[in-house]
Amino acid sequence: MELSTPGPTVGVVGGGQLGRMLGEAAGPLGVELVVLDPTPACPASSLVRDQFVGDFDDEAGVRELAERADVLTYEIELADPDLLERVSEETGTPVHPSPATLRTIQDKLVQNEWLADAGVPLPEFVGVESAEDLRAAGDALGWPVMLKARRGGYDGRGNLPVEGPDDAERALAEVGAGDGGALAEALVPFERELSVVGAKGASGQAAFDVTETVHREEILRESVTPARTDEAVIERAREVAGQVLDATDGRGVFGIELFETEAGEILVNEVAPRPHNSGHWTIEGAHTSQFEQHLRAVLGWPLGDPGLRAPTVTANLLGDAEETTSPATLAGAEAVLSEPRAHLHWYGKRETRPLRKMGHVTYVGDEREREGEDDGVRESLETVEALLSRARERRAEVTVE
Amino acid sequence: MELSTPGPTVGVVGGGQLGRMLGEAAGPLGVELVVLDPTPACPASSLVRDQFVGDFDDEAGVRELAERADVLTYEIELADPDLLERVSEETGTPVHPSPATLRTIQDKLVQNEWLADAGVPLPEFVGVESAEDLRAAGDALGWPVMLKARRGGYDGRGNLPVEGPDDAERALAEVGAGDGGALAEALVPFERELSVVGAKGASGQAAFDVTETVHREEILRESVTPARTDEAVIERAREVAGQVLDATDGRGVFGIELFETEAGEILVNEVAPRPHNSGHWTIEGAHTSQFEQHLRAVLGWPLGDPGLRAPTVTANLLGDAEETTSPATLAGAEAVLSEPRAHLHWYGKRETRPLRKMGHVTYVGDEREREGEDDGVRESLETVEALLSRARERRAEVTVE
Repeated sequence: MELSTPGPTVGVVGGGQLGRMLGEAAGPLGVELVVLDPTPACPASSLVRDQFVGDFDDEAGVRELAERADVLTYEIELADPDLLERVSEETGTPVHPSPATLRTIQDKLVQNEWLADAGVPLPEFVGVESAEDLRAAGDALGWPVMLKARRGGYDGRGNLPVEGPDDAERALAEVGAGDGGALAEALVPFERELSVVGAKGASGQAAFDVTETVHREEILRESVTPARTDEAVIERAREVAGQVLDATDGRGVFGIELFETEAGEILVNEVAPRPHNSGHWTIEGAHTSQFEQHLRAVLGWPLGDPGLRAPTVTANLLGDAEETTSPATLAGAEAVLSEPRAHLHWYGKRETRPLRKMGHVTYVGDEREREGEDDGVRESLETVEALLSRARERRAEVTVE
Repeated sequence: MELSTPGPTVGVVGGGQLGRMLGEAAGPLGVELVVLDPTPACPASSLVRDQFVGDFDDEAGVRELAERADVLTYEIELADPDLLERVSEETGTPVHPSPATLRTIQDKLVQNEWLADAGVPLPEFVGVESAEDLRAAGDALGWPVMLKARRGGYDGRGNLPVEGPDDAERALAEVGAGDGGALAEALVPFERELSVVGAKGASGQAAFDVTETVHREEILRESVTPARTDEAVIERAREVAGQVLDATDGRGVFGIELFETEAGEILVNEVAPRPHNSGHWTIEGAHTSQFEQHLRAVLGWPLGDPGLRAPTVTANLLGDAEETTSPATLAGAEAVLSEPRAHLHWYGKRETRPLRKMGHVTYVGDEREREGEDDGVRESLETVEALLSRARERRAEVTVE
């Protein structure tokens, strides 16, 4: 294998914070990025060779990417799998992960059917087209059920718990099931949520450590690694993540969101075919970051060492503002910058909005406390507890406006 | 303190590998860089907001930087301190480290006099203008002496050991003492070379761990951290580095090259007012990299935690080519990319030349082996020995062409 200058070049559909962090990871590897994003001066723009300004499904823009790049990828599910497939066939520039996998994941019903066919454990689910379907689903799965729009939902949008048959019409209208239909899932009483970011390379797979994800208002607030749960649960989460990776087509990094049920079962919630918010801790906490790993995977390079360097807690910086404000500011940044072993990541978004992901901070623990032995595990858990309360203290000192 | 979008913006004179790594460090902080460099598509160019193409002393270019930036800095000693001072006065954009410190460091005789005045231990030295001066210096300091051109030397260029009085004329001509004169230093028999990268911030100083630098043909080949020497020597190296930082004016990161003499004494060899090749290990090996630290310092932000994360060995990738070749390639990159805990840094230089710095690889050891206790130290030394031989095996498998 030869690394040469300039390049290789990776074309990325989307230039948000994930594209920006891909750019930060590309520099040391001698890799150059070009991105397609509709927002001029998007977060990735100052860390890539070029930004093409255009929508994620802009045919001319995707062609420009393909002509400039050695390989195409995407950092957002709004990418258009049909267009990527067509442009790839016409230009000969490969796309990873495969458009087929993207297409499958874009439809939550198709995603669940695909995972179920692969033997991956999931909450019970059924597709619903009408209020009648939904009432039947509730009676079969037991009320309440979780209603999910098949398409377009994220950060909890498009998901709604439905208490009983009388709420069926309203619920279907609210999740926007009109366009594309919906599915009903058994509402799983879970102990905690977990996530595994795994990579699929040209030869083999590599998963990062299991992380615990803390959500409020269905938005990720903190990732805690290692997860505060039993070794057996962690082992099972690894197995299930491996099943999901086996089922995917093409190369790249995948974010695999999991439920740990009260019974200690692991069920898959959702899969994202890209670096994931719950994997930002890998930048400081693992020997290879999820962003370097994604670049290695899509380029067909050997995967990096996913091993844990240290226990970490990552806290998202979400927009506090009641309404859009510009320029976006992080007031009280000094509180984070003066904290030892705290690593600030500010995404450079021009505008803030309530609960918009504006940045994150990773708090790194003592590397000696990460081993598998019991006392190592106990120490790790004490470490992450301390990091988590520190992160919350610090978070209270900053506002994103 | 507020972080806002876009910016803050740092203007950097020079866009080589140091500028590139500053760009990689700027991304997470939400900082944007603009650079001035004469080479189109310079190594930093794909990781900064803008590159102005112009010489380091191009007045219009420096003005553009000053007008775009909140603070000016430089990553190369060829920056022009008089021009920076003048443009800073006229535009009100501060320059760090101060042009006065840059001016002092650019003249090795003035640098030595400055350090000597500050009570910093140095090899004995004397300025020489003529062969007669040099012969007198050799008789006073004892032959052989190290002859150094006062200006423009780097990577050993401009330095020459002189055996005896008969070589005086030839030696002066060879080091190019004609322009700007020279100095003669007592040739110190040293046990090893060490380096300390230290930061001077708005309030206080922070030094990284003492690293051992291995040179061949007067060019840095490997940095070994922690240095393979006695705790007392390391303690003394820290003290001396602190004296140097006390003597500097303005904020930023400084590379401080040291000799450990056979008697275990610490003498300062040279000081660089910028991130230093011997500090690249901090990217993976310290809690804050020298590049993030430099940005924090010049912006007047709190300094980051300089603590050691893990023992590391950094090996430079130097041009093997007999003559300039383009595009530059790293043949056998897979050997490095497939090595666990090895971190490739490829600078993206278009052309290679013999011994040109084209990239580096950092090998990271086990974080648990870094403590100060005796067994921790012993383990650290075993770790770096193993990393060093691994680095050399891997280096033998790649060629830079």
